Amino acid sequence: MRPDEFRRRAHQLVDWMADYFQNVGELPITPDVHPGDIMRVLPEAAPDDAESFDRIWEDFQQLILPGMTHWNHPGWFAYFPANNSPPSVLAEMVTATLGAQCMSWATSPAATELEQITMTWLRQMLGLPEGFTGVIQDTASTATLVALLSARQRYQSEPGDESSGRLTVYASTEAHSSVEKAVKLSGIGLEQFRRIAVDDEYAMRADLLAQAIQRDLGNGYRPACVVATAGTTSSTAIDPLSAVAEICDGRKVWLHVDAAYAGAAAIVPELRPLFAGIERADSIVFNPHKWMLVNFDCSAYFVRDTQALLRTFQITPEYLRTSQDAEVVNYRDWGIQLGRRFRALKLWFVIRQYGVNGLRDMIRHHVGLAHQLAGRIRETPGFEVVAPVRFGLVCFRYCPRAAAGLDSERLNDLNRRVLARVNAGRKVFLTHTMLGGNHVLRMAIGQRLTMRSHVEMAWDLIQEAASSETA
Amino acid sequence: MRPDEFRRRAHQLVDWMADYFQNVGELPITPDVHPGDIMRVLPEAAPDDAESFDRIWEDFQQLILPGMTHWNHPGWFAYFPANNSPPSVLAEMVTATLGAQCMSWATSPAATELEQITMTWLRQMLGLPEGFTGVIQDTASTATLVALLSARQRYQSEPGDESSGRLTVYASTEAHSSVEKAVKLSGIGLEQFRRIAVDDEYAMRADLLAQAIQRDLGNGYRPACVVATAGTTSSTAIDPLSAVAEICDGRKVWLHVDAAYAGAAAIVPELRPLFAGIERADSIVFNPHKWMLVNFDCSAYFVRDTQALLRTFQITPEYLRTSQDAEVVNYRDWGIQLGRRFRALKLWFVIRQYGVNGLRDMIRHHVGLAHQLAGRIRETPGFEVVAPVRFGLVCFRYCPRAAAGLDSERLNDLNRRVLARVNAGRKVFLTHTMLGGNHVLRMAIGQRLTMRSHVEMAWDLIQEAASSETA
Repeated sequence: MRPDEFRRRAHQLVDWMADYFQNVGELPITPDVHPGDIMRVLPEAAPDDAESFDRIWEDFQQLILPGMTHWNHPGWFAYFPANNSPPSVLAEMVTATLGAQCMSWATSPAATELEQITMTWLRQMLGLPEGFTGVIQDTASTATLVALLSARQRYQSEPGDESSGRLTVYASTEAHSSVEKAVKLSGIGLEQFRRIAVDDEYAMRADLLAQAIQRDLGNGYRPACVVATAGTTSSTAIDPLSAVAEICDGRKVWLHVDAAYAGAAAIVPELRPLFAGIERADSIVFNPHKWMLVNFDCSAYFVRDTQALLRTFQITPEYLRTSQDAEVVNYRDWGIQLGRRFRALKLWFVIRQYGVNGLRDMIRHHVGLAHQLAGRIRETPGFEVVAPVRFGLVCFRYCPRAAAGLDSERLNDLNRRVLARVNAGRKVFLTHTMLGGNHVLRMAIGQRLTMRSHVEMAWDLIQEAASSETA
Repeated sequence: MRPDEFRRRAHQLVDWMADYFQNVGELPITPDVHPGDIMRVLPEAAPDDAESFDRIWEDFQQLILPGMTHWNHPGWFAYFPANNSPPSVLAEMVTATLGAQCMSWATSPAATELEQITMTWLRQMLGLPEGFTGVIQDTASTATLVALLSARQRYQSEPGDESSGRLTVYASTEAHSSVEKAVKLSGIGLEQFRRIAVDDEYAMRADLLAQAIQRDLGNGYRPACVVATAGTTSSTAIDPLSAVAEICDGRKVWLHVDAAYAGAAAIVPELRPLFAGIERADSIVFNPHKWMLVNFDCSAYFVRDTQALLRTFQITPEYLRTSQDAEVVNYRDWGIQLGRRFRALKLWFVIRQYGVNGLRDMIRHHVGLAHQLAGRIRETPGFEVVAPVRFGLVCFRYCPRAAAGLDSERLNDLNRRVLARVNAGRKVFLTHTMLGGNHVLRMAIGQRLTMRSHVEMAWDLIQEAASSETA
């Protein structure tokens, strides 16, 4: 493709992109496809000869786009948001064009230093003390694994240290699956993973954590890491961070705080008190790619003991040595991957384009909508809000008077059917979770384009669906 | 930023992008900056209020761009290439706009199925048998860690299996640092990592591998994984894959082949014989983002025993369950990350836009240039090619007759000075390695825009620099 054709095609795509941003709300939010439908219409072998971009683009529009789930649709209430934004997309265009591989300072000095700057900005925006240093990881799963490996490293100062086989890790029963995955991948092993029970607001019980650690110490285990959650995936519960930090302090237990979704809310002054104690953590992860208008992937990892991190990840072969190594940050030593995209650029574009106040306003807008929705649900007979609303997520279920005699499995099934009916309309998309044995509907409000009208439409659709399903 | 402003700004950026592709060769390939230069000119705190895109874009051009290393410059001969291309950038624009998070089939069916299709295409292009299944990982470092964790999993069928503490891993002394890193991160530990010596072409000695495995078995270790390299980073040496596979066979040792750079060459029929034996591996990684015109990041990981992979990575919490789970591929279970970008799209755009033949021609072009350069070096007194040229990399050094009496450290220093002088001109960029104790210049030819004239210019600059440096 010659430069002039690229110019023409890229302009063509920009018009499509701008149209998409304007019209995404009119598309079916989820595709009407069955497993295998898309594979069936695509050729089984790669073309030997070049094809025209016209044909590729037509196929994209005809075959691929109708099979996509539209995460940036204003009716998006599923999982957590992965909201993007115009300035973030502009930055991605530049990042892709430069095609720089930012593993070391020398392989792109501006990328490294812009990452240092934007991570300092983020640290300040969250109200974290100077003791924390930030680095961009791809996802929170990776960041949590990085934290666990760093905690493990603390106990492996000597090769072959036998005690490293006795490390234990702690998280609440509501912690994200990435914690379990990280425990498994780190080699610590699930048999040394302690799930701490939660209170009636789904937050970790600090007293039970203290007991578990004490018991393990008595049995010759070495408690290595506690993963506390600020904003659980199921219900945005917040573990008691100060109490947990108190328990970790002095016992040399690494405290990692998973604030993947909710962390963005810490930039809002009136919401920051919810995170009290987070400043005592050893490491923290939050995802600007969830709720801060930065394209996926961009996960912010803050760590206090950068030496533990470097001891875990630093390996410098000859072909990567540069004369500046002693003076600079080489981010390849701060995580699993050697190669790195220039992800700081989108963070910089987004923070500047909206300003910190603009980002705060967006979060306030979503949190306000969530509280309004929760109010509507609470005042509607036959529905109940089942967990505290702290951020943009509302957890609720349908339990009509007619269902009073139903056993919980049949009530769960009723809620499953209501959810399926709501989603079948493809105007909004919600997902579910289980809380205390109950099948619960989750409505996560956090899309950039989501307005009050979208939330109201969703609530109308939910009520309609509920009234159409018989207990 | 309103939709109409996005449209206008994106068109503005497209013109910059097209200009960049046309003019990148005229930019200084490396920036003239010292550590801290860029940080010093950027504000220490995020702006409270929104800024205009004009100002952001001006700052990008004034402050960031001059601090970038231009990986897509036709004078790029450093490390390995990370070549991108117009269709790949077009795909990245679409991917960013959709902003889809492709962790599960249900969260973007077309993204999952297009990944299945394009990975099948790639498998066929490489000539791998149907027994291999592909998945996109972000980098080869991650893929190698995934392989090692899968190999470890084979020995951990029971929780607390004591033998898992005795696993051993093997790679040549020329294997990439990511293998050492993966051994460390996996918890197997560096004391159980065996570095096998190489022959005089820098390829693993299979006889020494067999001895090491035999010795470990005798001492109660459990050989878990051999990482063979097809195209080492220092010199693109190829380990004897068939002999290594023979050793691994029957001993239940996982054979992972790291073909991160060179794997792309397997799509060229006349180069494929160099990879004989690769079809007997348990897993293979190669990076379309290095030498196949796909934007970083896009690493292709092929695995034979998908069940071992799934047993290692699959964890399904309630909030991620969908009704299709039994019928579909959920790629979140195929690696470390939960969240995933829609990376198959750029692979699809690139393969179709160039056709397999177009991609083959590009690789042939680069390999041809490398052989021509090697010929020129061999016929020039005072220079020597120090490793076989098999792909796009030429390893050589300056050792003039005048240096005949120099000890090796002074000769190394001479080569360091030659390299520094070449790079100081900022017209081309080369890096170095150590081979057999010698400081060696690496010239990796693989940029999309690199023509014969660029290679000749580099060679002229190298000769000039050499003649200016006195031994």
